[in-house]
Amino acid sequence: MNIAVAQSGGPTCAINASLAGVFREALKNPDIDAVFGSINGIEGIIRDHLIDLKNLLRTSEDLNLLRQTPSTVLGSCRFKLPDRREDDRIYRQIAETLKRRKIGAFFYIGGNDSMDTVQKLSAYFRETKTDIRVIGIPKTIDNDLRITDHTPGFGSAAKYVAVTMQEIIRDSSVYSIPSVTIVEIMGRHAGWLTASSAVLHALSEPAPHLIYVPEAHFSEERFLRDVEQQMAKHKAVIIAVSEGIEVPEGVQSGVVDNFGHKYLSGIGRYLELLVREKFGCKVRSIELNVMQRCSSHICSKTDIDEAEEIGAAGVRCAMHGETGRVMVFRRIHDAPYAVVTEPADASLIANREKFLPSEFLTPSGNNISDKAIAYFLPLIQGEVDLVMRHGVPAHFTIQESVLK
Amino acid sequence: MNIAVAQSGGPTCAINASLAGVFREALKNPDIDAVFGSINGIEGIIRDHLIDLKNLLRTSEDLNLLRQTPSTVLGSCRFKLPDRREDDRIYRQIAETLKRRKIGAFFYIGGNDSMDTVQKLSAYFRETKTDIRVIGIPKTIDNDLRITDHTPGFGSAAKYVAVTMQEIIRDSSVYSIPSVTIVEIMGRHAGWLTASSAVLHALSEPAPHLIYVPEAHFSEERFLRDVEQQMAKHKAVIIAVSEGIEVPEGVQSGVVDNFGHKYLSGIGRYLELLVREKFGCKVRSIELNVMQRCSSHICSKTDIDEAEEIGAAGVRCAMHGETGRVMVFRRIHDAPYAVVTEPADASLIANREKFLPSEFLTPSGNNISDKAIAYFLPLIQGEVDLVMRHGVPAHFTIQESVLK
Repeated sequence: MNIAVAQSGGPTCAINASLAGVFREALKNPDIDAVFGSINGIEGIIRDHLIDLKNLLRTSEDLNLLRQTPSTVLGSCRFKLPDRREDDRIYRQIAETLKRRKIGAFFYIGGNDSMDTVQKLSAYFRETKTDIRVIGIPKTIDNDLRITDHTPGFGSAAKYVAVTMQEIIRDSSVYSIPSVTIVEIMGRHAGWLTASSAVLHALSEPAPHLIYVPEAHFSEERFLRDVEQQMAKHKAVIIAVSEGIEVPEGVQSGVVDNFGHKYLSGIGRYLELLVREKFGCKVRSIELNVMQRCSSHICSKTDIDEAEEIGAAGVRCAMHGETGRVMVFRRIHDAPYAVVTEPADASLIANREKFLPSEFLTPSGNNISDKAIAYFLPLIQGEVDLVMRHGVPAHFTIQESVLK
Repeated sequence: MNIAVAQSGGPTCAINASLAGVFREALKNPDIDAVFGSINGIEGIIRDHLIDLKNLLRTSEDLNLLRQTPSTVLGSCRFKLPDRREDDRIYRQIAETLKRRKIGAFFYIGGNDSMDTVQKLSAYFRETKTDIRVIGIPKTIDNDLRITDHTPGFGSAAKYVAVTMQEIIRDSSVYSIPSVTIVEIMGRHAGWLTASSAVLHALSEPAPHLIYVPEAHFSEERFLRDVEQQMAKHKAVIIAVSEGIEVPEGVQSGVVDNFGHKYLSGIGRYLELLVREKFGCKVRSIELNVMQRCSSHICSKTDIDEAEEIGAAGVRCAMHGETGRVMVFRRIHDAPYAVVTEPADASLIANREKFLPSEFLTPSGNNISDKAIAYFLPLIQGEVDLVMRHGVPAHFTIQESVLK
């Protein structure tokens, strides 16, 4: 049979490694003929925009470059399937393409929205007695998927955050005047990535001195008191804050641009203004922006190896006849670190979120516990030996014309 | 004799490597006894806040960690000496400290403001017939010092910019809808660092599609026309822009820091709003912020090696009896790359700036020439083999209490 694979949702450093894992495992399996890559996620299946990956990935060097290339080499999408009982036209279109291409298994690399697609498609195929298996390969820097111990892509993002936070700490402590530095970190409604900056405490860094995540209630009054206390102890106070913490309605949109439009300034910028207003000291806010999800040059080898392995495990799972499953990690030990890869039911994961457990927070709610640090540390270990070209990492890319 | 060394100005990845270079060379020279580190630049000399570096840097492992630690391990300052004919009290205070500590040579690692200190102090010592030599070791990510081919710290910043820009290009091209991404880069009034992002063209990246530097006249009208042309050709348009380009009065943040300086920030955000207003497409702006000056984890080995060597060369220069000199690089070849290190008169460098030559710009003024790429490429080559601890680079630090 043939198989198809697609990538979906926001970029990470590990999505292409999972693609490499699916491809490598397929090559090993004599029951698999063609491996099709779908351009722009499920949209490529709908529009029959598929490319033969054996023509694209010709050498083991190609696969190694693919592993070290961030983002999605096949493009991505944010497409949600409608309820099939209301409208099954797109389902029939997808089934048609897959049947015509003799595709017996479809692998979807994505976050919790994409797992919704895995669940819906597999249920449709079961109902219509179509033997096409659908397997989800998780990815997200937010680490907010249920069941799995962690998600591919998170370890590399966490490593970037820790490495960069440490450098910002060095940068912030050069002058003799007091200062406050606020670093805004992604993660949507969950505080995993922000919390992971606490791994620096294992290196005897007292900073970040304060860590605010959406799982703890945020109060401005309490925040300013926290900052005041830390300023009494440290010349350069460093604060990590999740983009998703809850602040009073409307405060983020207070700034008006030159065109008279209100703009949504980030939470970091908002807290910066709050601290400056209250203490009048040197304050700056830093947004780690997309760099935290695409900085493959400092990816975690543990993450990239696991991302490749979970892609391969997905192929084995489908070839055992399973469908509607998402591959997950189950952790056996923190130290020495050990995980197993296994399938879980997509319905347990799709459209749901997972938040930091309360024991990962300190009782004060403004920092992270040692238990959490033990959880995070194994995920950021190891560096990939990068192939460099002209002083920058070599990337594997597809010509823009092929992607159109 | 004893010697003293201090670090000044904004952080870079290479300032500590230059400190390591001064220290290593001093160890080799039997005429040098103690090596004092001055805390917070020249302020440490004024306040007699010096530490014996032989007590601090005990092993070659310490020196290796120092080389890979960004920012200034001895702290920094932004202190400008007054004109000695108007007020020589601080000069006398400095001379007193240095004499009492039997310091016969002072090394100042810094940018063009610090070279003003080198010039003034050395002139004072000459005038007062005091045999204390003063030598400047350049550093700045802005690369805007005259005489020298380039400045230590610039190569690492340029490597970070190129590596990160390439990752942003990957990140920006995942969705099927058209988008514009604007990346704001440091450099004060000079476009060196922004221009260096053009090295990606040597890797067959068409992006950045547009590059705006302060050396070319900026017009909003022209900018919007450029963007429109690029949008017709590319789905994801990538733009690099210098923080220092001239835009109509008042459009930048207008925020004034504690020294009354206007903040040079917000140009990326300004252009983002301009593009959104005009084309209504997906636009985002990204500030590389302090990460571009402190990301030692992706430093250029060429830069770090040169920074160490120029520190060592400064010591040799002083021990030959020279003073009032700044060490500079003279480039012999682009490929194979070769430079020599030599002294230049501080008065030629202090308080002056160096801008991109016109042949580094394309005739259209919105991109960078191949000649410039040949200049930039050698500076970003090579990676330092980092010592890692718990998954992040190990840093050499001094206890906060010692720095107070």
